Order: sequence, then structure tokens, then C-alpha cells
Amino acid sequence: MSEANSDQLRLFIERIEWLNEEKKGISDDIRDVFNEAKAMGYDTKIMRPVIRLRAMKDHDRAEYQAILDTYMTALGL
Amino acid sequence: MSEANSDQLRLFIERIEWLNEEKKGISDDIRDVFNEAKAMGYDTKIMRPVIRLRAMKDHDRAEYQAILDTYMTALGL
Repeated sequence: MSEANSDQLRLFIERIEWLNEEKKGISDDIRDVFNEAKAMGYDTKIMRPVIRLRAMKDHDRAEYQAILDTYMTALGL
Repeated sequence: MSEANSDQLRLFIERIEWLNEEKKGISDDIRDVFNEAKAMGYDTKIMRPVIRLRAMKDHDRAEYQAILDTYMTALGL
């Protein structure tokens, strides 16, 4: 590979490495917020699925709940 | 739950949702860089393991290569 191409490849790799660092930083921030919520007494194990449910459209959430209810009933829970 | 607590919970959830959006944006940026590299003729399937190898300490990378070589030899590759 030519030196120019090697430099170009290195730049692509470095851009991705930098973005991965950014992403890791945000993951750390998310963990910090969960820890803060936990310290205030909120149950973070329940917050996680709540976030997923809140992201769903009403129709999808209703369908999710219906299927969940069906499975829970089937299992006698 | 009191209204104050509900508000507090909503704020925690919204902070996490916002951070998740940020994270998704960065993942999109990473995908864009890979696509850009691909358009320039680089093999992105090979770039991904290269990024992992570059992140390793020299010693860990040497160990990884040694084990990889052993396995490849064992399999006649």
C-alpha cells in the first residue's frame, strides 16, 4: 500500500477510534445517571425496561403488554 | 409516588433517553465513516478486527497472534 493510502487508512481508523471513545464516554454518562437514580432510591432494573416501553409506539406497547399477559397467564404467573 | 418524585423519575429517564440518542448518533457517524472508507476501496470487514488489534497492548496482541497461529496450524489452515 502506498504511503498516501496508508495515511488515508490510518485517518479512517483514527476517526472510528475517536468516535468509539465518544460512545464509551456516553455509556459512562448513562451508567452515572443510573447510579444517581439508584442513590435516590429508584429501582434501575425497572427503569431499563420502562425506557424501552416509553420508546415504543402506543400500539406496539399495547401489543407487547397483551403478549406478555398471555405468556404470564400461560405460565400461571 | 408523589408528583415531585414522578417529576424526578421523569427527569432521570429523559436524561438517559437523551444520552441514548447521542449514542445512536455516534453509531450512525461510525457507520458513515465505514461507508466512506468502503467507497474509497478499503475492506471494512478487515478494518473492524484491525481496530480491535490496534487497541490491544503489544503483549496482548502478540499473545492473540500466537494463539491464532496455533489454532490455524491445528486446523491445517
